[in-house]
Amino acid sequence: MIKVVLLGSGNVAVQLAKAFHKNENVEVLQVYYHTKLAKYFKNKNIECTQEIYLLKDAHVYILCLSDDVISTFSKKIDLPTKLVVHTSGSVAMNDLECNARKGVFYPLQTISKDKKMSFKKVPLCLEWEHEKDKIILEKLANSITKNVYYLDSSQRKQIHTAAVFINNFTNEIYQIAHDICKENDIPFELLHPLMLETTKKAIKTEPKLIQTGPAKRNDKTTIKKHLNLLNEKQQKVYKVLTNSIRERHANK
Amino acid sequence: MIKVVLLGSGNVAVQLAKAFHKNENVEVLQVYYHTKLAKYFKNKNIECTQEIYLLKDAHVYILCLSDDVISTFSKKIDLPTKLVVHTSGSVAMNDLECNARKGVFYPLQTISKDKKMSFKKVPLCLEWEHEKDKIILEKLANSITKNVYYLDSSQRKQIHTAAVFINNFTNEIYQIAHDICKENDIPFELLHPLMLETTKKAIKTEPKLIQTGPAKRNDKTTIKKHLNLLNEKQQKVYKVLTNSIRERHANK
Repeated sequence: MIKVVLLGSGNVAVQLAKAFHKNENVEVLQVYYHTKLAKYFKNKNIECTQEIYLLKDAHVYILCLSDDVISTFSKKIDLPTKLVVHTSGSVAMNDLECNARKGVFYPLQTISKDKKMSFKKVPLCLEWEHEKDKIILEKLANSITKNVYYLDSSQRKQIHTAAVFINNFTNEIYQIAHDICKENDIPFELLHPLMLETTKKAIKTEPKLIQTGPAKRNDKTTIKKHLNLLNEKQQKVYKVLTNSIRERHANK
Repeated sequence: MIKVVLLGSGNVAVQLAKAFHKNENVEVLQVYYHTKLAKYFKNKNIECTQEIYLLKDAHVYILCLSDDVISTFSKKIDLPTKLVVHTSGSVAMNDLECNARKGVFYPLQTISKDKKMSFKKVPLCLEWEHEKDKIILEKLANSITKNVYYLDSSQRKQIHTAAVFINNFTNEIYQIAHDICKENDIPFELLHPLMLETTKKAIKTEPKLIQTGPAKRNDKTTIKKHLNLLNEKQQKVYKVLTNSIRERHANK
């Protein structure tokens, strides 16, 4: 049985607790919270505290805090024989400034509190300071997902940047398409199948191998036609991505 | 029974023929081809011709040709009492210069010849010159999909532009993420679940409502960190999309 204490009461803490709860080999002993305790923890009668000095004896302490407070908060932790991990993509392991063994337990997914989510396919990126902590972190990760990876702090920073492209930028592209539809009385749902198909295809191969369209063909007539239909802001995005595709495929 | 003649022997012709073949109310009478006949038509023993004057008597003639030849090719068609449609997103109905009744039968999807695809969820965008052709086009569309839409030539040009964002630009974003992974010895599969989740979420709502990340928060520290990790070309894309998100959410 792996005993866990969660520090934080936001989306990540709640979703991790739910995932651990399904596994009989992991017990969430306690939740530390700062100002507000999530309903989930109240409903499940999980012990909670607002005092660092009242933290219970556990195997792993998981900081589920926003990136900018991890370092400062970690200074308060004085558990020299214990393993303390954070769950952030963009914070280095050594930004933990606690007196403890350090590690990282980073689930690569967009996590919302309310949405029912399954961790089964969520990649968990692990890092550890001491080799002996590898086994317990692996066990903990395997208790909720089959996709466990080992990334050092530098790789994790890179994947976090790549995730901004995948998540935030793709979403903005979708919104621009949504705007175009709205301005022209076209239901956005018309594009839903294409959204899914594009993503599924890119998952099966290297995306550039299945690229099509006017930018790849360097079809200036169509590119010009499209630019004429767009507003200035949309044109900026269109141009920079068209150039990116054009340059990539010009050398082929 | 709707009798159809396909003009063209590329991906669209093959996939349409396969879809029609599953439906007993539609018969592909004949295929016109220019230089090369697709294997599928040979295997199915569908009658074929290379001569316009040998076209058989059908209800609908579907031009499955690339955008830039539709107009020129259509001039050769002299079937004044017949319905002739093209399958292109970017070509206006009136760019058909045939002596015939005109229409459009545009499936909004990326279509490859070999891949097994189902038309069931593919949106079919229809347009017609004469109101009396509405019924037959609807029947034909409903024989292969449940998603039938009516778009005029102006709307179709717009949705075609939006589709470039959804398909080509999203794919380029995915490739940039793929490059980042490759340069840092990270398996791209780590990002697959996030790709799917992002798309599924955006389908359930208006994408901007679920936007997250440093651009939305205008978190300059993280944005700077990310830019430092990227090469010049990647930075250009990062900056333009970050600005697009920032401007969109600044007014909220």
